[in-house]
Amino acid sequence: MILNNNKNEFEISINGVSVIKHSSENPFIFIGKGEANYDMYRGNFKITDYLEERIPLKNFEVTKNEKNHFEINLFDHHQLKLTLIGKQKEGKTKIYFSSEDKFDNRIWIRIVAEEDEKIYGCGEQLSYFNLRGKNFPLWTSEPGVGRNKNTYTTWQADVKDKAGGDYYNTNYPEPTYISTRKYYCHLESTAYLDFDFRNKKFHELQCWNIPEFILFETGKTFLDIQEKLTANFGRQPKLPEWVYDGLILGLQGGTEVVLDKLNKALDAGIKVSGVWCQDWQGKRITSFGKRLNWNWKWSPEEYPNLDVEIKKLKERGIKFLGYINPYVIEGYDLYEEAKANGYLATKLDGSDYTVDFGEFYCGVVDFTNPKACEWYKNVIKTNLIDFGLDGWMADFGEYLPTDCKLSNGLSAEVMHNAWPAMWAKINYEAVKEAGKLEEIVYFMRAGFTGTQKYCTLIWAGDQSVDFSLDDGLASVIPAALSVGMTGNGLSHSDIGGYTSLHGNKRNRELLLRWAEMAAFTPVMRTHEGNRPDDNYQHDGDIGAMKFFARITDIYTSLKPYMKTLVEENTKYGIPVQRPIFFHYENDLRSYDIKYQYLLGEDLLVAPVHQEYMEKWNVYLPEDNWVHLWTGEEYTGGDYEVSARLGYPPVFYKKNSKWKSLFQEIGAK
Amino acid sequence: MILNNNKNEFEISINGVSVIKHSSENPFIFIGKGEANYDMYRGNFKITDYLEERIPLKNFEVTKNEKNHFEINLFDHHQLKLTLIGKQKEGKTKIYFSSEDKFDNRIWIRIVAEEDEKIYGCGEQLSYFNLRGKNFPLWTSEPGVGRNKNTYTTWQADVKDKAGGDYYNTNYPEPTYISTRKYYCHLESTAYLDFDFRNKKFHELQCWNIPEFILFETGKTFLDIQEKLTANFGRQPKLPEWVYDGLILGLQGGTEVVLDKLNKALDAGIKVSGVWCQDWQGKRITSFGKRLNWNWKWSPEEYPNLDVEIKKLKERGIKFLGYINPYVIEGYDLYEEAKANGYLATKLDGSDYTVDFGEFYCGVVDFTNPKACEWYKNVIKTNLIDFGLDGWMADFGEYLPTDCKLSNGLSAEVMHNAWPAMWAKINYEAVKEAGKLEEIVYFMRAGFTGTQKYCTLIWAGDQSVDFSLDDGLASVIPAALSVGMTGNGLSHSDIGGYTSLHGNKRNRELLLRWAEMAAFTPVMRTHEGNRPDDNYQHDGDIGAMKFFARITDIYTSLKPYMKTLVEENTKYGIPVQRPIFFHYENDLRSYDIKYQYLLGEDLLVAPVHQEYMEKWNVYLPEDNWVHLWTGEEYTGGDYEVSARLGYPPVFYKKNSKWKSLFQEIGAK
Repeated sequence: MILNNNKNEFEISINGVSVIKHSSENPFIFIGKGEANYDMYRGNFKITDYLEERIPLKNFEVTKNEKNHFEINLFDHHQLKLTLIGKQKEGKTKIYFSSEDKFDNRIWIRIVAEEDEKIYGCGEQLSYFNLRGKNFPLWTSEPGVGRNKNTYTTWQADVKDKAGGDYYNTNYPEPTYISTRKYYCHLESTAYLDFDFRNKKFHELQCWNIPEFILFETGKTFLDIQEKLTANFGRQPKLPEWVYDGLILGLQGGTEVVLDKLNKALDAGIKVSGVWCQDWQGKRITSFGKRLNWNWKWSPEEYPNLDVEIKKLKERGIKFLGYINPYVIEGYDLYEEAKANGYLATKLDGSDYTVDFGEFYCGVVDFTNPKACEWYKNVIKTNLIDFGLDGWMADFGEYLPTDCKLSNGLSAEVMHNAWPAMWAKINYEAVKEAGKLEEIVYFMRAGFTGTQKYCTLIWAGDQSVDFSLDDGLASVIPAALSVGMTGNGLSHSDIGGYTSLHGNKRNRELLLRWAEMAAFTPVMRTHEGNRPDDNYQHDGDIGAMKFFARITDIYTSLKPYMKTLVEENTKYGIPVQRPIFFHYENDLRSYDIKYQYLLGEDLLVAPVHQEYMEKWNVYLPEDNWVHLWTGEEYTGGDYEVSARLGYPPVFYKKNSKWKSLFQEIGAK
Repeated sequence: MILNNNKNEFEISINGVSVIKHSSENPFIFIGKGEANYDMYRGNFKITDYLEERIPLKNFEVTKNEKNHFEINLFDHHQLKLTLIGKQKEGKTKIYFSSEDKFDNRIWIRIVAEEDEKIYGCGEQLSYFNLRGKNFPLWTSEPGVGRNKNTYTTWQADVKDKAGGDYYNTNYPEPTYISTRKYYCHLESTAYLDFDFRNKKFHELQCWNIPEFILFETGKTFLDIQEKLTANFGRQPKLPEWVYDGLILGLQGGTEVVLDKLNKALDAGIKVSGVWCQDWQGKRITSFGKRLNWNWKWSPEEYPNLDVEIKKLKERGIKFLGYINPYVIEGYDLYEEAKANGYLATKLDGSDYTVDFGEFYCGVVDFTNPKACEWYKNVIKTNLIDFGLDGWMADFGEYLPTDCKLSNGLSAEVMHNAWPAMWAKINYEAVKEAGKLEEIVYFMRAGFTGTQKYCTLIWAGDQSVDFSLDDGLASVIPAALSVGMTGNGLSHSDIGGYTSLHGNKRNRELLLRWAEMAAFTPVMRTHEGNRPDDNYQHDGDIGAMKFFARITDIYTSLKPYMKTLVEENTKYGIPVQRPIFFHYENDLRSYDIKYQYLLGEDLLVAPVHQEYMEKWNVYLPEDNWVHLWTGEEYTGGDYEVSARLGYPPVFYKKNSKWKSLFQEIGAK
C-alpha cells in the first residue's frame, strides 16, 4: 500500500494497482443526506430515495503517512466531514471511515477504473456475469418472477403481485467484487448499497450509511485472488460424502407417497442419495400453490411413522432432508413461545409485528437477540437434527421489514441485508454444536457478507419453469459463477425450476435439460415446484425415469473428481464451477462468457439452455479438448456440436489425469 | 413583496403569501451538477441523470432591501454561488437568478407549501388534475400509448416501440402552476424541469440550467389569478365565427371520397362547418397505418381539382382545413430547398440530420434561424393560406433531438422545450401577416411557455381509442382543465380518439360518447384515427349519422352562449372549460374533481367516460341546478342520474340568463 500525495492530490495504490485517485477537480468521495422509502410486498421491494445533498469532499490533509498506515482528513471547504485511516496487514489494505457529521447517511466512493476492465461477483447475479456497464443495487430480496420488463411473465407478475423483478434483483447480493485489474474490493456495510460500474473512468460505490471500511487485496492470478478473498471471508465446509451418491429427490405428500415414489425411482435405476421433503412439518394450500406450515417440527399427521421410517431409510443408505426458515407462523406453538419470551421483532411501538408471506402471517425471529438465537438453534438441534434430518433447505432471510424494532437497537434498514448471514450462522452453529459439520447439508438462497463461512451450500433460488435467460435454466449459470467469485464455491439449483405462475408450466424437455446440467454441478436435487400438478416430474413417464437413471449414474461416476474439487474449495476457496478465464487468463473472449463454465480445471461444460436444440454452439479456449460423448478432439475456437437430450456439450482436457474416468463416463 | 430577514434566515412573502423561507437548517436552494442522457425514439424519451453534486446554499447576505427590490447573495460556505435579484412591478414579483459558477447546471428551488394545499396547471396533464402528491417531469414529448404501466396496451407499446408513456408524459408541459394558496408561479427556463409536489412542507422545482427568473403573482380569487396569469403570458385570439356552425369533419382519401362523405353527412342532417383533410398533401402507408407525406403543399394527385372545389365548398359555407408540421420529408422539394439554404438543424459536425418518424425521415426546420422562420412562414402563407385553407392541424413540435446543432448556437437540450411555442409563433405570425387572425384556426398538441399567446386552439393529442382513464376519453377532461389553468382556455380533442394499436379498435359507443362530450367543448372535430378501417366512424350506420345530426344540432344551438365564453377567454383568459372550484371556491370537494367541469359559469358537464352506462354518478356544488334533458331540479350533493347515449349528464343553473336557450336545447 502506497499513499502518494502532494498539496493538491493523492493516490492510493496497492502492489502497483492504483485504486484511489483524488484531486479537488476529481474528488473520490461524495457525502450527503437522503431520505429513503422502502415499500415491501412479499419480499419484493420498491426502494426510492429523496436525495437532499451530495457534496464532493474536495479538500484534504494527510495527517499521517507511515509504512502500512495513513490518516487523511476530508473536508467540505474547511469543514471536516470524514476521516480515513488506512491500514495494511497480512496483504490486506483496509481504509476505515469515520464521519464527523451525524446527519450524513449517504456516501459515494469512486474507485479507479479502466475502460476495458471487467467486474465480477457482487453476490449471486442471475442476469449478468461481467457487471461492467450496469449498476447493481445490493439489497437482499425476492429476485423476481421473469426479471425482464420485456417479458409477459414479468409484466403479469408486476401488475398482479409487484413481483416481476429486474436484472439486479437477487436473494444474495454482496458488496464484494473482483476486478480484471487483479484485485478484489469489499465494502463493509449492511445498509442499502448500489455499485455502479457504468462509468469508464471510475466505479462508484454508493452506500446508505457510513461504512466501517473498504478492503482491497491484490493477487497475481484469479486463483490467487480467489484464495485471498475466501481466506478473508471464510470458506465452506466440505459436502457430506453421501451427497455424491445420487440425486436428492424432492418429494412431497406424506410418508406413504414419498416411500412409494422413492421405491419406484430406485426400481427404475435412479441413484438416490436422499429424499427432501419440504412439507415434513405439514402444509397449507394458498392461491400460489401448496405452501408449508411454518411451525418447525415433524408433523405426524402429514408424515405418520416418519420417526421410524427415517431410521429405516438411513439403513438403506437414503438420507431424509427437511425444511426450515427464520419465520414462525402465527397461532402455533413456536410463535407463541417466541412471542412470550420476546424473541420476535416488533413494531416500533413494541406491539406484535407479523409479516405477510402470501395469505398467511409470521413472526420474525429476532437474530439480534442472542437468546432468540440460542432458542432457534435449539429448535434446529432438537426438532431437526435430533429427529434425524440429514439436511434441509434453510429458506428465506430476505424479508426483514425495514420498519421493525430489533433487540440490538439498530435500525432494521441497516440490519436487513445482514439477516441472511445471521440466519446462516444459526444453522452453522446448530450443526457444528451437534458435531455434524460435513455430515449434514443445508442449502440457502439468501446471502450477504459472511454467508461464505456459514452456509454449507448455495441454492440459486426460485427460477421460473422455463428457458428464459433472466429467470430460467440459463440464469443459474451466471448465478453459480458470480456467487462462486464472491466466495461460495458450492452451489446448485432446483432441477426443473420452481415457479409456475401466469401460465408457465414446466415441460419434459426443461426438466431433462436441467437435470443433465445438474449432473455437472456439485449437487443434484429436484423440486416439484410450487404447483406440482402443473409441472413435469421425474416420474412423468418411463423414458424420463430412464433418463434420470442414466444421468444420476453419470453424476455419481464423477464422485472422485467432484470430491477433489470440493476439497479444493474448502482448502483454497476455488469454486467447483469456475469461469473459463480462471484457467485461461490470456483468453480475452472468455471474460464475457456467462453460459459456459469449467467444472474444475479438466471439464468444460456448455449447458443447452434453449428449447428444441439438436446442436449447440460452444466456445473453447485454446487447449486440447475431447468431446465427452463422441471422443472427437478439438482445439480452441467456435464449434457447433451435437447436443441431443442427455448429451450436453461437455469437454475434457486431453491430457487430464482423469482421462480414463471421463472416457468411462462418456461411454454411458 | 416583502423580504424579512435577520442574520440567520429570511422570508419572502407577497401580499401576505409566504413563498420562500430560508435558514441554514432549511435552505431553499440547492445547486449542483449533473450529466444527462436523453434517449429519443420517435418522440418518446428515456431521460436519465447522473447527479454528481447537490449542494445546499446555506449562507446568505442581503445586499439590498428596498421597496420592490432586493438582492441576496447565496453561498456554499464562503463561496458565492448564486445571486438573486428580486423586483416587483405591476403586481408581479420576479426573482432573477445569476450563477457565479459556470459548471453548475442543476438547481432545486423550494417553495413554501402547506399540507392541504393543491396545485394545478403545469401545462396539459392527462392523468392528474390536482398535481399534489406526485412529481412532474416537464419535457415535451409523445404522451405515450396507454400511459399506465399496469395496462396491457402500455406494456405492449413499451416493449414494441418504447412508447407506453407514464402519467406525466405530455405534448404540452409548462413550468407554471396555480396554488390553492392563491398565487401562480412560473419558472422561466426551457431546459428539462421536474416539479415535485410530493413533500408536505415544500414544493421542489428542479431545473437543468440556471433559470432566468421565477415569477409569483397572487390573486384574490382563481378568476383573478387566471386573469393575471394570462395577462402575463398573452391570450388566445377568438375562434372564427364559422367554427360554431357545426362539426369539423375529419376525412381522408381524396377529393371525390371527401365530397361524397361530406354530402352524405349533410344529407343525414349533420351540421358541418368544415372538412379537415390531413392528407391534402398526399400520404404514405407505414406499418403504423396511413401516414402523411410531409411536403407541405396541395397534392393534385391525391386531391384532384381541390383548387376549384375548395372555393365551391366555401360558397356552400363549408371550410377546408389541412395539415402541416415543422418537419420536411427527405427527398422532396421543401427539404431540398431548406437544406440548400441552411434552414435545417444539423448534426454537431454540421452534416445532415434527419429524424426517424416511423419508417420515414425528415429534416427539422431550424426555428432559431430567423431566415428559416421567414421561409417557413412563407410556406404557410403561400401553400396553405393562399391556397385557401381555413385552418390546419399544426402538428408535432416535440421531436427536437438533443444532439443537433442549431443556428443560434444554444444547446438543443435547452431549446427542445422551447420548440412548440416557436412553432406556434410561426403559425401565428403567418396568419397575422396574412390578415387572417380570427378567420383561420390552427390547432396544436405540443406546447410550452409562450403557447398561450400564439396558438389559436389546443388539441389534446393522440388518445387511444378506448375508455381508459389515462389515455382514453376520460383523459381529455383533466387535459382541458390543466391546460386551461396554464392559460389556454380553448381546447378540444379528436372525437373518438386516434391511436389504434395492439388490438385497440374504436367501437361505436366510444365514438358517440366522445361526440356527445365534444358538443360541450368549444370545438367539435372528428378524426378517422391512424387506422381508419379498424375504427368506427361517424357514418358507420344510419343511427350513428342521426346521432351526429342531433349532437351537432345541440352544439350549434349553444353558439350564442359559447361565443360569450370564448370572448371571456380572449378578454380575461378565463377558460371555456373550467374546474368547478373556479365558481365555487368554498366547495372543498370540488378541488379534487377531475372528470367534471363547468362550461362557463352556467353549465356543469359530467361526461360519461365508461362503457355500458345507463346511469352516471355526478357531484353538484351547492346551487340550484336543472338537469338539461329532464328538467329535474337538484341542489348540491351526489346523485345518480340517467345517462343514456346522447344524453350526457349536463346541468344548468336555475337562475341562468341563458335558461330559455338551455331549455330549448334540452328538448332536442
